[in-house]
Amino acid sequence: MYQDATSAVPAALDHTLALTLLQSFNGQGALMAWNAKLTGMTPGTCEISLPYSDAVSQQHGYFHGGVIGTLADAAGGYAANTLLIPVSECLTAEYKINIVAPGIGDTLIARGKVLKSGKTLVVSSAEVFVVNQGQEKLCAIMQQTLFVIAKK
Amino acid sequence: MYQDATSAVPAALDHTLALTLLQSFNGQGALMAWNAKLTGMTPGTCEISLPYSDAVSQQHGYFHGGVIGTLADAAGGYAANTLLIPVSECLTAEYKINIVAPGIGDTLIARGKVLKSGKTLVVSSAEVFVVNQGQEKLCAIMQQTLFVIAKK
Amino acid sequence: MYQDATSAVPAALDHTLALTLLQSFNGQGALMAWNAKLTGMTPGTCEISLPYSDAVSQQHGYFHGGVIGTLADAAGGYAANTLLIPVSECLTAEYKINIVAPGIGDTLIARGKVLKSGKTLVVSSAEVFVVNQGQEKLCAIMQQTLFVIAKK
Amino acid sequence: MYQDATSAVPAALDHTLALTLLQSFNGQGALMAWNAKLTGMTPGTCEISLPYSDAVSQQHGYFHGGVIGTLADAAGGYAANTLLIPVSECLTAEYKINIVAPGIGDTLIARGKVLKSGKTLVVSSAEVFVVNQGQEKLCAIMQQTLFVIAKK
Repeated sequence: MYQDATSAVPAALDHTLALTLLQSFNGQGALMAWNAKLTGMTPGTCEISLPYSDAVSQQHGYFHGGVIGTLADAAGGYAANTLLIPVSECLTAEYKINIVAPGIGDTLIARGKVLKSGKTLVVSSAEVFVVNQGQEKLCAIMQQTLFVIAKK
Repeated sequence: MYQDATSAVPAALDHTLALTLLQSFNGQGALMAWNAKLTGMTPGTCEISLPYSDAVSQQHGYFHGGVIGTLADAAGGYAANTLLIPVSECLTAEYKINIVAPGIGDTLIARGKVLKSGKTLVVSSAEVFVVNQGQEKLCAIMQQTLFVIAKK
Repeated sequence: MYQDATSAVPAALDHTLALTLLQSFNGQGALMAWNAKLTGMTPGTCEISLPYSDAVSQQHGYFHGGVIGTLADAAGGYAANTLLIPVSECLTAEYKINIVAPGIGDTLIARGKVLKSGKTLVVSSAEVFVVNQGQEKLCAIMQQTLFVIAKK
Repeated sequence: MYQDATSAVPAALDHTLALTLLQSFNGQGALMAWNAKLTGMTPGTCEISLPYSDAVSQQHGYFHGGVIGTLADAAGGYAANTLLIPVSECLTAEYKINIVAPGIGDTLIARGKVLKSGKTLVVSSAEVFVVNQGQEKLCAIMQQTLFVIAKK
């Protein structure tokens, strides 16, 4: 169900593709309500970050685990989309995430990358870091399966 | 690392425990920003629901996958807490979720239950349903590992 | 990527389909080397069991975790195949398994069932039990995604 | 539940620790029946390989998915043990594995590494490669949670 990704990936994402993905990202009400930003994309990778606020907190004043999971899922998914757009796009079939440290800090950064790109399925991973007083700390690790569909 | 749960679980959750858990739930800014409600708890189970709004949407106007994942994680975690409070509580170590249908509807309902309760680890599952015109449809299935810590 | 499974599933598996699946099962060298048996199938479910031997042991003389995982994966996969054969069949895209008790006993039994059956993806689960002095004990819980392909 | 691993890990594994782990590995009947070998260890990493045979095959004559999963689980677990022995050791709490290519070849190689080492939980990952005519090809990707216990 997988085919090998093309061996040589270009270093920069095509400008039109980047705008298409940015438009999709900005159409996601949940991410906009949190003030999430798409802060980086190359072919096969994606970085998303968001600032701390009440709307992303849990009961101890840390970043909520669900927010951490959402950011990881989105970063892995957009990483996959950089290799699929404009012909096709992808949906999350499933993901698995380990929370390895509490989300204590002022900024959350998720960095996704494609591990295997196939015709029907893509496997991505993401690491989520929390930034506290300028120091990045790993707080979550995700592995994800995405399902490729024709672009509407 | 697991010990068997006590064989006979009571049918109703102790009132004081329920209030403690409700207070914890209502302290979660992310869930409050979405207008999520704790709609049911028995020993070993928990139900959470939330109404559709822009703040929980993705780009096609459906419930966001991250919101679905967050609700599943919370339902499994509070299900575990019903068996732990007031002596201890739990943190999510990891979870895995399959999204099996798009979140099209007006209400999201997550139902979590404990599969195995141990001294240090608890395994929970959750099913998430989307309600559309009064019809519930399964949209996600989660399996989760929680880590037990002493209650602060 | 999913479509709803037909609502009414028959209670018994068609005899010809059962034989086709049994033949496939018996062609798996790894399972045969362990003396694994296909001990039950209905549409959407499958049971597999195997006796304890040195070939399935780990360093403390219990059933090996890899053997437990293999049985769970196979039980979920054959459960899916009961709904796909003879038109199509499935491959494991991924699975996640929690080991919740050590595999101490004389027999291992894995029971798989389909949770959601789609045109391209199927989600199954399995529980694995270890039998010790006639008592079944839950030792693992699995959730799995399978990829549907045309039958060769 | 996690604490940061010591920042500076030595480049070579202590000889006595290596022998202890090798002895544990060689005590696993399932791995010995397959003729699996522990082919590399450094602090925080482990490599295991095994040759193709009927005892590790599925119905099409490829490496069995369960064998691939077992090797990944073992590689991640022994990688964790290199950081725990002789004070403590670990058990697999759960793992999630994506099979990304069929296991066609003569040798299977699993490479595990620790991603986060804590007092009670360790998160490892592993990649599994199949070697065909001297060419390594990625066939599986695993993410795993291990539970630390006192060494008996």
